[in-house]
Amino acid sequence: MILDCAVIGGGPAGLTAGLYTTRGGLENVVMFEKGMPGGQIMNSSEIENYPGVTGEITGMDLMTPWPEQCQKFGLIHEMIEVTRVSKNDAGNFTIYKGDGTSVEAHSVIVGTGSTPRRVGFKGENELFGKGVSTCATCDGFFYKGKEVAVIGGGDTALEEALYLAKICAKVYLVHRRDEFRSAPNTIERIKKTENIELVLNASPEEVYGDAMGVTGLRVVFKDGTSRDIEVPGVFTFVGNDVNNEVLKQEDGSFICDMNEHGEVLVDISMRTSTSGLFAVGDMRVDAPKQVVSAAGDGAVAALQAIAYVDEKVSE
Amino acid sequence: MILDCAVIGGGPAGLTAGLYTTRGGLENVVMFEKGMPGGQIMNSSEIENYPGVTGEITGMDLMTPWPEQCQKFGLIHEMIEVTRVSKNDAGNFTIYKGDGTSVEAHSVIVGTGSTPRRVGFKGENELFGKGVSTCATCDGFFYKGKEVAVIGGGDTALEEALYLAKICAKVYLVHRRDEFRSAPNTIERIKKTENIELVLNASPEEVYGDAMGVTGLRVVFKDGTSRDIEVPGVFTFVGNDVNNEVLKQEDGSFICDMNEHGEVLVDISMRTSTSGLFAVGDMRVDAPKQVVSAAGDGAVAALQAIAYVDEKVSE
Repeated sequence: MILDCAVIGGGPAGLTAGLYTTRGGLENVVMFEKGMPGGQIMNSSEIENYPGVTGEITGMDLMTPWPEQCQKFGLIHEMIEVTRVSKNDAGNFTIYKGDGTSVEAHSVIVGTGSTPRRVGFKGENELFGKGVSTCATCDGFFYKGKEVAVIGGGDTALEEALYLAKICAKVYLVHRRDEFRSAPNTIERIKKTENIELVLNASPEEVYGDAMGVTGLRVVFKDGTSRDIEVPGVFTFVGNDVNNEVLKQEDGSFICDMNEHGEVLVDISMRTSTSGLFAVGDMRVDAPKQVVSAAGDGAVAALQAIAYVDEKVSE
Repeated sequence: MILDCAVIGGGPAGLTAGLYTTRGGLENVVMFEKGMPGGQIMNSSEIENYPGVTGEITGMDLMTPWPEQCQKFGLIHEMIEVTRVSKNDAGNFTIYKGDGTSVEAHSVIVGTGSTPRRVGFKGENELFGKGVSTCATCDGFFYKGKEVAVIGGGDTALEEALYLAKICAKVYLVHRRDEFRSAPNTIERIKKTENIELVLNASPEEVYGDAMGVTGLRVVFKDGTSRDIEVPGVFTFVGNDVNNEVLKQEDGSFICDMNEHGEVLVDISMRTSTSGLFAVGDMRVDAPKQVVSAAGDGAVAALQAIAYVDEKVSE
């Protein structure tokens, strides 16, 4: 049996792709997700910007109704890891699974997300989601009128610092060097923004807090001195690992075109350079990394997959 | 005063754009919507594919919490029609309003939607949303295993007929000519699909029903004979009017690049060809015309608008 569609990843993008493909008439659609469906947002302690769902809710609250709703139309959830997706000579995809077995599919929608890198200082993991964040768009507003620290020196760190400076009273920008690796124009704007204080040649040593969350960040300078920055929020932007392993082929190449950050290149309808393969959510180029956008991607890709399979099967 | 952002249109895309711009720190953001916010989906009698919101709900139920949620961060709703958006020599946009006044804005997010054309037969308006539909993706599933009629002969009609054929027991494809204006490949697939019956040289005369909704469609053939097709669902696809009037300039040209259907050309981040102007939802090219996708567009455009305004104002 050949699956009409294999959905790889069970976050908002994958779940929505599963909902739309099955509701649109595709049969034998399997969502491969070795853990609980829901995605990265499940770790979020508060979410208030998913339109239509209100109240003081956690990421887990938000995602609770999704699996049942998305599986109502026949989507099957297989709790196994996918190790690789390849396209065979017959034009079908082969989905290689962690247990050594494989299954074929006419189309594939991959939404395995990305993982923000941790910096590696004391308290970072313990206070993640309780004042330590990797997403200014998601969590910046919770610090409106308050002071926050941003850790990092690349493009994303600087852009997120500018974003936070519009919301927060003050942004401490902590960077281990005395120069930034970013566009000159962005650096210029950082320097001109009055409520951004540069804390250079400084590495974070420890984030600490109490039962309510983060209360401060201690940084150590190159000369050995240290400083305590008393903030309730610490945002880290030190890179992102795109979970693109399933797209890597045996020879080390990727099944479709990627950019230099390891993100999948897609068009406005989430089509990759390989026909029948779609990429959605945080792993695709220019992803806004928001639940509602990831879900939107899943719907778009599903409609494309339906048309693709319909045409392929009728040939 | 110059608005940071003018949002034109109060559907899911515009509301979400308003939520994300204001929550992201833009000030003086006005959503121009002369009617009640909520958009076209407000007319839908049932929606089950907006992820995270479940139960037997109407489009109006779905949209009820949106305005309060989206205005919580400072978005202002101005109940007035916008007649035109232009960009002036200073690089600001001028928003011309229906009462003859105008206001300037640093950025504009336009999401005024599109309007499916009505065919114009008896009962069409009265039974719209009660068995008459213009969206197979939205409503096709409600006729799973049942028979439906599709009216139209262009690309969209044929593609939607193929979509419905995967879900429904049978699709009657009603077209007033004996040939289709569509891609040869699509026509070929239509002819090969066993559960599509072509009803050619036929024009719809009347759709009728009872308190439960549509029960049948009467078509009249070119030779004057008629036929009753007993179906609970009638889908019409006779074109779409993109609500792009606000983008039309005094000389008749558009403020940004459009395609031949009058849809706005955008990149994957909803940027139009005019910097600072973003287009979202059903009016943009390749729009999937789903609430979740429109909302996703709004979030993406808002994040772009925030970065644009931040850079513009710092210059």
